[in-house]
Amino acid sequence: MKLFSFWRSLATYRVRIALNLKDIVPDEVVDINLLKGQQREATFRAVNPMMAIPALVDGEGPALFESLAIIEYLDEIHPSPPLLPPDARGRARARGLAQIVACDSHPLLVPRVREYLEHELKLDEQTRMAWCRHWITEALAAIESHLKTEKETGRYCHGDAVTVADICLVSQAAGAKFFQVDVAPFPTVNRIVDACQAIDAFARAHPLKQPGAPATG
Amino acid sequence: MKLFSFWRSLATYRVRIALNLKDIVPDEVVDINLLKGQQREATFRAVNPMMAIPALVDGEGPALFESLAIIEYLDEIHPSPPLLPPDARGRARARGLAQIVACDSHPLLVPRVREYLEHELKLDEQTRMAWCRHWITEALAAIESHLKTEKETGRYCHGDAVTVADICLVSQAAGAKFFQVDVAPFPTVNRIVDACQAIDAFARAHPLKQPGAPATG
Repeated sequence: MKLFSFWRSLATYRVRIALNLKDIVPDEVVDINLLKGQQREATFRAVNPMMAIPALVDGEGPALFESLAIIEYLDEIHPSPPLLPPDARGRARARGLAQIVACDSHPLLVPRVREYLEHELKLDEQTRMAWCRHWITEALAAIESHLKTEKETGRYCHGDAVTVADICLVSQAAGAKFFQVDVAPFPTVNRIVDACQAIDAFARAHPLKQPGAPATG
Repeated sequence: MKLFSFWRSLATYRVRIALNLKDIVPDEVVDINLLKGQQREATFRAVNPMMAIPALVDGEGPALFESLAIIEYLDEIHPSPPLLPPDARGRARARGLAQIVACDSHPLLVPRVREYLEHELKLDEQTRMAWCRHWITEALAAIESHLKTEKETGRYCHGDAVTVADICLVSQAAGAKFFQVDVAPFPTVNRIVDACQAIDAFARAHPLKQPGAPATG
């Protein structure tokens, strides 16, 4: 397997956690420097036309793309440990929580959007930071509401086993830290993120532990 | 089943197509008028803390949420006809294409984002329209690149059977029409959208055929 990655990419962070949980070590990790715009270079555009990471090449055929699609693929080809609950309703809840992060929040903060805010809309840094914090906070509030009120919540987002919901929640928490969001109003989120971070597969995948990351957050 | 819906919601459109393909008729369809902000009222917030539609109540327990999670749930409890390819790599591709729509494009156009652009950032209508068109076009370009170059493309996005990728692509095409995007550069997308629109389950689900929709697009 070949993983296209960048230390700061929250979507790649999710895939790294899934790989670690399943004890899969990619043969190669290719750095795509988002801060230098390498995702828009022709060679990478041929790998992923959306010009985004992660992308994962597994054997023949075009690269897999989109973090949640890659995670479900990994879960199907390496079923142990499972990253989805055993029942359809549980899977819907875990996927739904994951998608609050991956559909409703993170897409508003990715480099191409932040660049549009800066270069097309000419917004100053304070306004751009307020934008990022707003969408991170909205999603955290919705997730906190689910987690604190629904009986399916356990040690982790869904029961006492890690699922794709936890993987996404941990990436959301890292985004909250990058953008200095106040997470005090979300105690259930914080409890579950702490429980996940205590797991080696999560801890090793952290953006700040990847090659190229700055020494401090 | 009880579906929380609004005629103009592109995410609910996706779920309606899936319901139609599987011949499932919800017992009740509850209108949540996004133009009047009903998604933010306390009664609906209790249904879906993210204050977004669709939401689907099936029997006991809290509502299901997020369109892709709901579609996978429907596919699991009513497996025929399947909405995902039979192989893991095919499923990853279909889900990836679906997520280009549902993660990379549509989240940038939803009412809460358009309202932020208008009321917080004070952008004029022309600038807001350019924003919407930009993100719709970026995703269509990426999808066209996949569809026109990859051998897995058939009558539909993935082979000759409809998948979740087609459901999302059709919703993207409807969004392109709402926001008057030029789709001429995307011939493969257009061919597949036309093939889908010829299927009754897709045609009946169209936003402009729902209660409350204006007489013309």
